[in-house]
Amino acid sequence: MMTRAFELDASDPLSDYRQRFTLPDGVIYLDGNSLGALPTATPAAMARVVENEWGEGLIRSWNDADWFEMGGRIGAKIAPLIGAQPDEVIACDTVSVNLFKLISAALAMRPGRKVILSEPGNFPTDIYMIEGLERQGLAVQRLASRGRITEALDDDVALLMLTHAHYKTGELFDMAAMTKAAHDAGALVLWDLSHSTGAMPVDLNGVDADFATGCGYKYLCGGPGAPAFAYVAERHHAGLAQPLTGWFGHARPFAFSDEYEAAPGIEQLQCGTSPILGLAALEVGVDLIAEIGVDRLYAKSQALSEFFLECMAAHGMSLELVSPSQSDERGSQLSFRHENAYGLCQALIARGVIGDFRDPDILRLGFAPAYLRFEDMAEAARHLAEVFAGEEWRREEFNRRAAVT
Amino acid sequence: MMTRAFELDASDPLSDYRQRFTLPDGVIYLDGNSLGALPTATPAAMARVVENEWGEGLIRSWNDADWFEMGGRIGAKIAPLIGAQPDEVIACDTVSVNLFKLISAALAMRPGRKVILSEPGNFPTDIYMIEGLERQGLAVQRLASRGRITEALDDDVALLMLTHAHYKTGELFDMAAMTKAAHDAGALVLWDLSHSTGAMPVDLNGVDADFATGCGYKYLCGGPGAPAFAYVAERHHAGLAQPLTGWFGHARPFAFSDEYEAAPGIEQLQCGTSPILGLAALEVGVDLIAEIGVDRLYAKSQALSEFFLECMAAHGMSLELVSPSQSDERGSQLSFRHENAYGLCQALIARGVIGDFRDPDILRLGFAPAYLRFEDMAEAARHLAEVFAGEEWRREEFNRRAAVT
Repeated sequence: MMTRAFELDASDPLSDYRQRFTLPDGVIYLDGNSLGALPTATPAAMARVVENEWGEGLIRSWNDADWFEMGGRIGAKIAPLIGAQPDEVIACDTVSVNLFKLISAALAMRPGRKVILSEPGNFPTDIYMIEGLERQGLAVQRLASRGRITEALDDDVALLMLTHAHYKTGELFDMAAMTKAAHDAGALVLWDLSHSTGAMPVDLNGVDADFATGCGYKYLCGGPGAPAFAYVAERHHAGLAQPLTGWFGHARPFAFSDEYEAAPGIEQLQCGTSPILGLAALEVGVDLIAEIGVDRLYAKSQALSEFFLECMAAHGMSLELVSPSQSDERGSQLSFRHENAYGLCQALIARGVIGDFRDPDILRLGFAPAYLRFEDMAEAARHLAEVFAGEEWRREEFNRRAAVT
Repeated sequence: MMTRAFELDASDPLSDYRQRFTLPDGVIYLDGNSLGALPTATPAAMARVVENEWGEGLIRSWNDADWFEMGGRIGAKIAPLIGAQPDEVIACDTVSVNLFKLISAALAMRPGRKVILSEPGNFPTDIYMIEGLERQGLAVQRLASRGRITEALDDDVALLMLTHAHYKTGELFDMAAMTKAAHDAGALVLWDLSHSTGAMPVDLNGVDADFATGCGYKYLCGGPGAPAFAYVAERHHAGLAQPLTGWFGHARPFAFSDEYEAAPGIEQLQCGTSPILGLAALEVGVDLIAEIGVDRLYAKSQALSEFFLECMAAHGMSLELVSPSQSDERGSQLSFRHENAYGLCQALIARGVIGDFRDPDILRLGFAPAYLRFEDMAEAARHLAEVFAGEEWRREEFNRRAAVT
């Protein structure tokens, strides 16, 4: 398969972008869906922000280096990746905190309805943030499995909150259909785009979505714990009310008034002081992903995962695939179920093939299309086949069990 | 006064620490209370985190570089600066978001009481975060002026929330007395230490405080928009409940359970994924401030502001001082009221003396003791006297009015 891999790489229109990322020698990185790789431009950008803007500019940089505008500016750059208008997206806080704001905003727009509907097994923090509002007595959590969501959409549901690409399996929701079903039931919709943004096109405006949030540190390559983003459809800006009413969301923060007055636009989603160092790294990643373009990234992502499955088949391997078998029905990953998934994952990592293990039995391999090669697919599949056939994973499993005994 | 300044600098035990900060040429920086200066060690630390830990270590660094522990580790380093135990403090989110968590926690501990008591003119975000909980119908805001707070502490008050050193005037609250008054009324106490931490000793345990939060980007020199910290007295850990229940506050985040179970200790205040780049910069600042020591910093801070006032007097200047005249009753700043404060501030900035203007008529000069010299005090006072006597501020005021017309 290596010959075929080289051919595919040679004809890959994105192949030159790999050199725009710094990747360690001897590593095949299949965990860009957890933490994206480092763009080569990031260290210099960080040094500029730290040494020039902070060190030399000091407090003046809030104006002179446009720090005040960073959240909005980066949001506007993320917008075209997710089918939004520039003034509908802002980079701020974390996905968790943004979920809290947006769930709260939805509850305020649907008085009399308290149910937040999601699916069991959604990414934990999404469910936990509903629980936080339950603690406050303001929300009621309802979880319905994927096939039962539509029937669970009754008159009590204020908000349907789903993750577009499932973190564990990569399974996609039909955003248009689910959004329409929610709207038909009088509910609003909040999409978590953490595992989609930067890996595949999303069309929030096209599906008429109300709210969305997503992660800066996965496919957007914004660095560990990068700020997240939040989207609110423009039609909701005037009626928006959320409880994290910090001074950076104020219409005139430097009036230092005792009365909160929300900024008129998407800026009202900001809360505390913008995290400039994190935003600076995020912007480099967003610029690079936007330059490559999500349509091309998604096409390559599909080709990579399809080729990986071909390579596995060529090695005679068959693992239980829990991701959808059709590449247009999944995010940029393949997840396999195996009782020894932990040992397999650790044995791969020991060989420099970095994927991840998701409790209790999932081996998750992510295919970040901006910097992976078809050659990496062939190599990773070979390693997986060797690990599977060999004894290494048994040692890893033994060590794990010994560690917890 | 310059001779006297040189003598004071020569005998200043902290004088060598100035070289541990990068300060631009030609600038006297009197705004470290807004954004602390850059420690010289920060650029290399950031490069290491970005290039080695992120670039080379990738996802492995969550374990190998102890990213998971950063919030708690930095919190433990901040703890001795504020009179707390290491396991009572954590670095996370922003002051605003931490206020929301801690106000909510207090409300949950005082069922039947909904009033959050503060003072008018407290830092805006503190008041706004009460308003956010008012929007949710969970809190009632009550503001009482400084002399009337004790009488406003009735049976409805769940929490007394005050800022130790006032952002505008530097005036200090007597933390022990106010905390005792609140406790006597059955209320809890939350201290905002944004303008104290790293500039003066604080003794949270000693005054029996319940909650506190504070800023990472002022005297702690953590960089623009640095993560904040939060403190919860250990006696409250077991009974703590706050609504921002993100996955990083979970007892076992990687169990990926649908049920939220709070981490047992201070970690339960974490919400989303830790902002590693911001934390990395914050840690350098905290290490440096801790090395110098808050007692020495406060002594120098007092000496600096006293000397500045002496220099002003020697120039025959008298501006209305809105800060307390006794240095042990104020934070590390001097604020003056003048109808042309804006013009004076801008004219000083044009000369490289960077203070700030606080609407409508306050010129605020901060004296970050870690990197300022007595020489800077003499020079800044001379500039202020010249600016005051001259015409520069009139041009700045003219430009300002022309700009808004």
